[in-house]
Amino acid sequence: MYTPALEHLCIVMVETSHPGNIGSAARAMKVMGIQDLRLVAPRKPYSQDTWALASGANDIIEQAKIVPTLQDAVADCHIVIGASARSERTLQWPQMDSRECGVFVAEHLPQQKIALVFGRERSGLTNEELDHCNTLVHIPMAFDFFSLNIAMAIQVLAYECATAVRLAMPSETTPPDPDDALASAESMESFYTHLEQSMIATRFLDPENPRLLMRRLRRLFGRAGVTVSEMNILRGMLAAFAGRKFQTRE
Amino acid sequence: MYTPALEHLCIVMVETSHPGNIGSAARAMKVMGIQDLRLVAPRKPYSQDTWALASGANDIIEQAKIVPTLQDAVADCHIVIGASARSERTLQWPQMDSRECGVFVAEHLPQQKIALVFGRERSGLTNEELDHCNTLVHIPMAFDFFSLNIAMAIQVLAYECATAVRLAMPSETTPPDPDDALASAESMESFYTHLEQSMIATRFLDPENPRLLMRRLRRLFGRAGVTVSEMNILRGMLAAFAGRKFQTRE
Repeated sequence: MYTPALEHLCIVMVETSHPGNIGSAARAMKVMGIQDLRLVAPRKPYSQDTWALASGANDIIEQAKIVPTLQDAVADCHIVIGASARSERTLQWPQMDSRECGVFVAEHLPQQKIALVFGRERSGLTNEELDHCNTLVHIPMAFDFFSLNIAMAIQVLAYECATAVRLAMPSETTPPDPDDALASAESMESFYTHLEQSMIATRFLDPENPRLLMRRLRRLFGRAGVTVSEMNILRGMLAAFAGRKFQTRE
Repeated sequence: MYTPALEHLCIVMVETSHPGNIGSAARAMKVMGIQDLRLVAPRKPYSQDTWALASGANDIIEQAKIVPTLQDAVADCHIVIGASARSERTLQWPQMDSRECGVFVAEHLPQQKIALVFGRERSGLTNEELDHCNTLVHIPMAFDFFSLNIAMAIQVLAYECATAVRLAMPSETTPPDPDDALASAESMESFYTHLEQSMIATRFLDPENPRLLMRRLRRLFGRAGVTVSEMNILRGMLAAFAGRKFQTRE
């Protein structure tokens, strides 16, 4: 069953080592009705394996965008979800399991553009890459020391999203308020840069010893999901704070 | 998370052509905590691919039973579920989709021994084999002419069963991290007052014409749920911004 809402969901694969995994991922996506694949700096060019494993999902590979960084890959997305091998107790990002992720995605499509991000086969996503994610998702597994193949993980999450969208379909009603549209990842990045500069300028943040300040603020705002109109307020407020000392006093 | 109930679930693969698919299937099972694999007359002996793709699930391959017929494979099972590439309108067997199958399996384990049966890569199960099944299961897909790789199908159904079993178990509560405790309403109010004063001081907010600024900021931070440690950052940041003009410049 074709579900147009899934057009707003993209899969991002970061520095994939095995070209075969890209083919398997494309097939896993296509079967579930997801078309938009984005590749961040794949380690090797497409191989025979890529096309053999894509097995009819060639169109997805042919249309895949190849970009140098995760930031480029998700620039037009409103919600970025990073796949994590397991529930990270040490990390302080918000977390969902795969079932919750499907429900979350179904709730936010098609108003929002959503990216599901998968890291390297062996090492996953770096903390810097996780900073670009609003939330993490993990697939519950039987053993901590064991993990799914990356294409299998894409299959499971694509399946969860497609199932949740399908189950949510009969009851779609409320037209979205344009004021409530989420700010894009690009606009969020620009805000974070502004915020960081303001904190450095006021010496609240020491660039020599930044601690986890920016990461924690990203976590806070990422969790909230900042709308376009809220972003205008935040940027205006920062500009006003920065301009303060230049202001003529009455 | 290990769930003993899954010991009563077995996966049966009938006349599998590609030894690599058996390896991938073993990994898919193991990740979800399913151990019992049964192979009906596989077409080829195990290959390098089998072991490479099993990737740590060697024990499942080593313990797999190889039998000549489906009837032998499911002899000790109480419920036999046949995987079908799609919802078969022409067939007169009872049908479930993959989500319903998970719930069904969770309901009947561990009292019953259940087999999930997967047919040949190209042609699936014969009608005679379907006669040995109590019910059929299919995974809903976006396109009728397209299908999942067999190991992917095993992954999805193993995942559905493991998830349903997990959700059916009494929930275990994780102790909260004190750092993640939410700021009290009192502390939030104090923050909002501080924020409002800062905005008035920098003339971003005109007390004569406050518009909905504070309401919108309350909505943003209220939605996020600010933790105690995040509150410390926000308050510190506001104090730094306010102190800026008094600071000696270097």
